[in-house]
Amino acid sequence: MNVYAEIITIGDEILYGQITDTNSQWIGQELGKAGFRIIRKTSIGDTREEILTALKEAEQRADVILTTGGLGPTKDDITKYTFAEYFGTEMTFREEVFENIDRLFKIRGRQLTELNRQQAYVPSNGKVVMNEVGTAPGMWFPKGKKVFVSMPGVPHEMKKMMTDSIIPSLRESFNTPFIYHKMVRTIGIPESSLSQMLEDWELALPEHIKLAYLPRLGQVRLRLTATGPDLDMLKYEVEKQLEQIRPMLGDKMYSEDDLEIEELIAGLLTSRGQKLATAESCTGGLVADRITNLAGASAFFQGGIVAYSNEVKESQLGVNATTLQAHGAVSEETAKEMAENVRLKYGADFGISTTGIAGPTGGTPEKPVGTIWIAYSDKDKTEAKLLQLSSDRLLNINATANAVLKLLWENIR
Amino acid sequence: MNVYAEIITIGDEILYGQITDTNSQWIGQELGKAGFRIIRKTSIGDTREEILTALKEAEQRADVILTTGGLGPTKDDITKYTFAEYFGTEMTFREEVFENIDRLFKIRGRQLTELNRQQAYVPSNGKVVMNEVGTAPGMWFPKGKKVFVSMPGVPHEMKKMMTDSIIPSLRESFNTPFIYHKMVRTIGIPESSLSQMLEDWELALPEHIKLAYLPRLGQVRLRLTATGPDLDMLKYEVEKQLEQIRPMLGDKMYSEDDLEIEELIAGLLTSRGQKLATAESCTGGLVADRITNLAGASAFFQGGIVAYSNEVKESQLGVNATTLQAHGAVSEETAKEMAENVRLKYGADFGISTTGIAGPTGGTPEKPVGTIWIAYSDKDKTEAKLLQLSSDRLLNINATANAVLKLLWENIR
Repeated sequence: MNVYAEIITIGDEILYGQITDTNSQWIGQELGKAGFRIIRKTSIGDTREEILTALKEAEQRADVILTTGGLGPTKDDITKYTFAEYFGTEMTFREEVFENIDRLFKIRGRQLTELNRQQAYVPSNGKVVMNEVGTAPGMWFPKGKKVFVSMPGVPHEMKKMMTDSIIPSLRESFNTPFIYHKMVRTIGIPESSLSQMLEDWELALPEHIKLAYLPRLGQVRLRLTATGPDLDMLKYEVEKQLEQIRPMLGDKMYSEDDLEIEELIAGLLTSRGQKLATAESCTGGLVADRITNLAGASAFFQGGIVAYSNEVKESQLGVNATTLQAHGAVSEETAKEMAENVRLKYGADFGISTTGIAGPTGGTPEKPVGTIWIAYSDKDKTEAKLLQLSSDRLLNINATANAVLKLLWENIR
Repeated sequence: MNVYAEIITIGDEILYGQITDTNSQWIGQELGKAGFRIIRKTSIGDTREEILTALKEAEQRADVILTTGGLGPTKDDITKYTFAEYFGTEMTFREEVFENIDRLFKIRGRQLTELNRQQAYVPSNGKVVMNEVGTAPGMWFPKGKKVFVSMPGVPHEMKKMMTDSIIPSLRESFNTPFIYHKMVRTIGIPESSLSQMLEDWELALPEHIKLAYLPRLGQVRLRLTATGPDLDMLKYEVEKQLEQIRPMLGDKMYSEDDLEIEELIAGLLTSRGQKLATAESCTGGLVADRITNLAGASAFFQGGIVAYSNEVKESQLGVNATTLQAHGAVSEETAKEMAENVRLKYGADFGISTTGIAGPTGGTPEKPVGTIWIAYSDKDKTEAKLLQLSSDRLLNINATANAVLKLLWENIR
């Protein structure tokens, strides 16, 4: 009953970590939602042998094989020629693909090259998947009851193709069962304690509902995965399971919808018509960045100050010179003044702040690298919290952003 | 002569895209630098059969097989038991591992559970790789001339193990050839034109030097990969190749060291003792975030303002009310005032700004989603540039950050 899918990403740059492979993550999410059972993701280099081997292996296991990459106009892009070899077929020139390439070059005001013209050749057994935003076409190859799909590696081109055309076609071709994921987020309880707390419940889960623990920077996500022919029934069964664990988890469970904490904050502040402002030193803009990555952030986010130098903390954020002198920039007092002042200056209901030594250098015996203060301020109170983190700069910046958003959430929820 | 490596990441959450697999990217980078030839990366689910199959397949192709994930204390973590089955061996209790777990729980002031005690069991043929920052030990399994390594999936635990112990041991066990990568970055020239410009040179490259094109958001990186027994010779040969393309590429080539554009800016401003300030609307803090992710950013970065609301643009950034009224927040005039005012207010040598409609909503017929102005200001001039981007919010935010950093770089280089 399960329909099995595999994802193959092609390119040495993925193997050697020279680019982040966001494609296979996104494809995995979409295939999961469409009811496919993903059994493997493989990354291989741009060589004929590796592509042929990977296709052959995947065909033995999976019903649907999706590949990305290797469709560009340059010499190292050999995917479509290798597909032609795999299927034992010729390359044929596709007029509609060439017209699309020609159209794109005209829009961009560029000169079409012979290399671009070659992008209009496609293996003759392939159905073209039009690429409206790029020159490399996607390709759909049926083989018996199985389907191979080749897509470009450029993320926004691939995503548009998948959404507009490939996922609907796959859903139509395969009668996929439903796979229902429910992600519950907890904060402030370690994985092992959580697991012990939930042990009896976990052991009693029915066969078709699986549980997984996903820990990350002070949070643990619980993922329930239910598989079956009736989506409403799956939702009902998962809800019944959640009813059992809600009383055990209490306020450790902060989201039942796999939302980031900033999404919960955004929802609440928008519905209440309240405003937020941020004052960041060690997080350097990351808190504001996470907030403004959400569409509609302007409804509740006034803006913020990145006060990196002491000079700016004083002149722009109004932190007292005496506070900076007596306690230093990394101190409870400075953090509180930052949060309070940004709230007042920006006309916001809530202000939050971060100040600390992110590292790798800049520590002292009294304030080692990883010493970080965060603060929260509203019209009634201002409170600060000390974090003692690691020596890893990026880890510290990210964990501090999480912590200050959590501090805000606890105060406003 | 090549030593082949494969990376296997274990966990359904990777297959379904519920977490970003940053581990395999980082491991790929480190193995590449250590002279290993990476032939495949595989992601599989947490099932016994899939783990056994993936290990067997990898053993047929590779000399070194590294796995991450599935070492936590909970029921879905089955990696080490499956390794024991793969090698046909028992689990044995390791006192030194238990002591480490006990130590970590004491530091954290938590109660040790029976589940945590079970983390001290390791397949008897495995050498323990101590995990100083977490409870799950790493494991090193020799098999004939091959080596299997199992590491936890928590990124900072895995990274510490790799750096401190596993990479040095692998270098010692295998006499790896050198693989020298040189990454050259170009900006403002499309991949197909670049490829045509370099065609003759590319065709004449010797067998052991490979070229790849990696396009991303208006940039194309050229990667030269040379393999051989003598590292100095490889560097010399690659340098000779670069001498041929430098005159062709001119100022389209902005870095020969695979540096992000903010790293080049940081190097230049730090050496000159000059200061930068940022005023961001649509990028919402991302530009400041990218700058402050660099260690040592405080040497040249004063800070910035995230002016999300018009109110803040006016009150904090001093944009004229008449400018906002006559031209709107998304306009050449506003962008210029933002860049100039943040430079003056923050006492910086250079100011940069962004203001635009990131989307997905908020567009108008005259200013559709993707209409974005960026500006640069120094003591002699202030200039702005119009970008017309897509309807994808995150793509727009990221491309705008790239564009404004490029505008700065072109003015100061």
